[in-house]
Amino acid sequence: MNGAQVLLDTLVANGVQVCFANPGTSEMQFVAAVDAVPEMRAILALFEGVATGAADGYGRMTGKPAATLLHLGPGLGNGIANLHNARRARTPLVNIVGDHATYHKRYDPPLESDIESLAMPVSGWYGSPQRVADLAAGATDAVRAALGPPGQVATLVVPADLTWTEVGQDAVTRPAGAVSTGRGANDATTGAIRESKPLQVPEDDVERIAKLLRGGEPVMLLLGGTAVHERGLAAASRVARRTGARLLCETFPANMVRGAGMPGVERLAYLAELAMAQLEGVRHLVLADAKAPVSFFAYPGKPSSLVPDGCQVHVLATSGHDVPGALEHLASLLGTTGDEPEHHLAIRPERPVGPLTASALGAAIGAVLPEGAIVSDEGNTAGLFVYQETAGSPPHNWLCLTGGAIGQGLPVATGAAVACPDRPVVCLEADGSAMYTPQALWTQAREGLNVTTVVLANHAYAVLEMELARVGAGTAGPRASSMLDIGNPDMDFVALARGMGVDSSRASTAEELVEALERAFGEPGPHLVEAVMPRGLG
Amino acid sequence: MNGAQVLLDTLVANGVQVCFANPGTSEMQFVAAVDAVPEMRAILALFEGVATGAADGYGRMTGKPAATLLHLGPGLGNGIANLHNARRARTPLVNIVGDHATYHKRYDPPLESDIESLAMPVSGWYGSPQRVADLAAGATDAVRAALGPPGQVATLVVPADLTWTEVGQDAVTRPAGAVSTGRGANDATTGAIRESKPLQVPEDDVERIAKLLRGGEPVMLLLGGTAVHERGLAAASRVARRTGARLLCETFPANMVRGAGMPGVERLAYLAELAMAQLEGVRHLVLADAKAPVSFFAYPGKPSSLVPDGCQVHVLATSGHDVPGALEHLASLLGTTGDEPEHHLAIRPERPVGPLTASALGAAIGAVLPEGAIVSDEGNTAGLFVYQETAGSPPHNWLCLTGGAIGQGLPVATGAAVACPDRPVVCLEADGSAMYTPQALWTQAREGLNVTTVVLANHAYAVLEMELARVGAGTAGPRASSMLDIGNPDMDFVALARGMGVDSSRASTAEELVEALERAFGEPGPHLVEAVMPRGLG
Repeated sequence: MNGAQVLLDTLVANGVQVCFANPGTSEMQFVAAVDAVPEMRAILALFEGVATGAADGYGRMTGKPAATLLHLGPGLGNGIANLHNARRARTPLVNIVGDHATYHKRYDPPLESDIESLAMPVSGWYGSPQRVADLAAGATDAVRAALGPPGQVATLVVPADLTWTEVGQDAVTRPAGAVSTGRGANDATTGAIRESKPLQVPEDDVERIAKLLRGGEPVMLLLGGTAVHERGLAAASRVARRTGARLLCETFPANMVRGAGMPGVERLAYLAELAMAQLEGVRHLVLADAKAPVSFFAYPGKPSSLVPDGCQVHVLATSGHDVPGALEHLASLLGTTGDEPEHHLAIRPERPVGPLTASALGAAIGAVLPEGAIVSDEGNTAGLFVYQETAGSPPHNWLCLTGGAIGQGLPVATGAAVACPDRPVVCLEADGSAMYTPQALWTQAREGLNVTTVVLANHAYAVLEMELARVGAGTAGPRASSMLDIGNPDMDFVALARGMGVDSSRASTAEELVEALERAFGEPGPHLVEAVMPRGLG
Repeated sequence: MNGAQVLLDTLVANGVQVCFANPGTSEMQFVAAVDAVPEMRAILALFEGVATGAADGYGRMTGKPAATLLHLGPGLGNGIANLHNARRARTPLVNIVGDHATYHKRYDPPLESDIESLAMPVSGWYGSPQRVADLAAGATDAVRAALGPPGQVATLVVPADLTWTEVGQDAVTRPAGAVSTGRGANDATTGAIRESKPLQVPEDDVERIAKLLRGGEPVMLLLGGTAVHERGLAAASRVARRTGARLLCETFPANMVRGAGMPGVERLAYLAELAMAQLEGVRHLVLADAKAPVSFFAYPGKPSSLVPDGCQVHVLATSGHDVPGALEHLASLLGTTGDEPEHHLAIRPERPVGPLTASALGAAIGAVLPEGAIVSDEGNTAGLFVYQETAGSPPHNWLCLTGGAIGQGLPVATGAAVACPDRPVVCLEADGSAMYTPQALWTQAREGLNVTTVVLANHAYAVLEMELARVGAGTAGPRASSMLDIGNPDMDFVALARGMGVDSSRASTAEELVEALERAFGEPGPHLVEAVMPRGLG
């Protein structure tokens, strides 16, 4: 067998079963080897940002890494934005980048560049074996590093000559002691190694927080990461009910469990002004797998940190900890064993009729969201009402734009659908954001994935219309306004989707949207609905 | 005035007149300032790779830099592939990346990342002023660095707080002594500073090469960069006619002048096997703004360097030199003053009829290519015949995939059309490559650019079908084959173009293609023709 097969076999032996690939010449041995390793599902993407975003979506839903396969520095470059989001989501992800042969690089051929420099800003782990004998160990280390905890992007750069060098069957590294910790909101882990279990939060730390909660001063628990999966939410909710502490979760959780029967938790607002109002009066902020709140951007004369003056910040657990365990321990110290957590009633909005406003859009999705849905949310301004209108819809997962790098929605939806083929995936996609990685639609069509994309077509970078005023730039002149107007010409997403083999339709009223959604949810394979929204901020 | 205006005014004062932008919140002050600085034309792109590739195309045609405007690390990431191509093309380009406010970065907000690490692999110059007082100097230095010579990517990272800080009018840096050196194949330089003129090649070096050429041993001149603009080609051709030396140019020149009445020069083959045949028997290889030939990729058991055994490599001029001057000096030392250079006759192929083969495609374009056309060539395997069939078409420029990073064709065509509004631009675009940066079509529609895109739809990564065999991976199994097949589902480029506001049609025969091309060339604004080619390698 050659190095490419060793690499694939090692990945499979360590529990990696899917590879989202956009290969080139330096990865051809890897591609050729997929026929010899049927346990690895190779999924083609037409653009690298689709591959990296799909691996992120897959990792968020399974808690285990998918691999990517990218072509040299420029291919990695195209994947960086969604690797940035994956890094912020703490998604386990094995990012494989093919490189020139070891002896070829010094000739500086046209595609040569400094891959390590490009990779480091998005990678928690980086390795590049230089001998075929080190390839299996490198791949094993990459999987282990990716799994964490916390999960991270592990970049493995593979020189082409290693992939075509022949080695013995015994070169494959198999895990010694497989440990599955069951991380992930929808854990389908089978065979993944997990050498390091998450750390337990020391008893003293939990007791300190418990004492604080008994102290009578205003406390807020800020939840993020695995704290917004079901166990963590339930425990936090019991704590809040018993002590009067308030709950909030981070603005853009990687994967939140919610809906009817689940504890509800308000999200920290994106707008700093609103976030400060949410936090007003809090004397103690307790972080559970969340960071102390900070403004997304700086604005003239406004603070960066959103922690109120006089508020103390306490850390219950960080992302390397057993976060749900810490919350459950806290709940138990507070004597809430047996308490019922708060939960949302199964109340949906009425099916809306009439004009397709942002509020009608929210109601339409809330009214018909299927049970077990996975929502990939890149709806931005036009999608603001969808979150609240789905609070009482059947239980579902909600995946947010963790790193703020636009172009995540469609690829993450694609990867989530690969991870969970029996669950409906809904992608809420602002029209501006949709144009960063539209190629994901083609992969959805090719793989027959059950993704319903709703494009919120307001024909504007509406979030920037708002931000222009917030940064103190005053009223936009005609030329500045035109830079935020993507309605000249209007994009036709029905045509774009058809161009990539995806069934599509346009909804101009609330009734049409409800009808289109129900049809999409009722049929297998991908669909796209262009929701014609009021222009701009509407 | 604020820092954003200072930045814009300084760019304009230093000859930068166009900015290809995909801004976010941290660049809103820059966007707001465009109304106050009408000399700067801001052109919106829906994806950063379009902005960077368009700036490359603009720089290749004018010899002066356009600016980009990108949003933080992830926005830069999306632009890296085409910055890589610009770096390899030695295009002057001012790459502006907005960053968080200086005081905001330490809070590690969601979009924070290491921009410098991402930028360095593609940047010849990097700067990030930390005080508004340094902004104008930074911008001036960036323009100067971009211009070179040789041209390069100069990355200027601008913290948001600098853009909203108020300063005096005198903060703008204006050039002291403007020097225009007339670099660029289609020089439209007005007002650009050029502090450093290109170096003259020392007399001794030129004489040494002249002596070599008189020596009677087989010599080949390998031309690249500015050596394949009109002056360099004419001088090289006179040298070759007089001495019997052979001429070859690099595989992917950034911008080559060619067509009827121009000296013709063969290109070094992409396939190493063919390149070695071209170079066989050469005893002296003389480089004029070209690198010693190296295989694009390594292949098992094949050499990386394509320089024949026993062949000596000599450098006449590098990219920092006055390359056309050196070639003219050489021609004069060899007594060719007054000689006519070789030139192609004005002979076009007949208009083809019948099936749309690769050869018919070449003939169709050769038959109708308009005078003064600019060809952005990312036709890959399906476009192989177009180059030879246009050799006797009216004079035109040919822009190649300099860095091998796919997704260059449509953006470079866009920027070339902005640079040269009175010239027709033809984009030869393989279907696989077209899907990396299809968003360029929207900018073409928005700006009404005269670009005719011909999508060569063979529904395959045909170059990889070939490469799979060449890397020694044997015959592809069904799963490997499917990874190179982008015809499942087929993309519909007529629908995709319409989705972005571009007039489009499909040509299934040679006649239909000729007709569609003539219609496109006869009408203003962008057009796309999907040329239905034989599947795969055809």
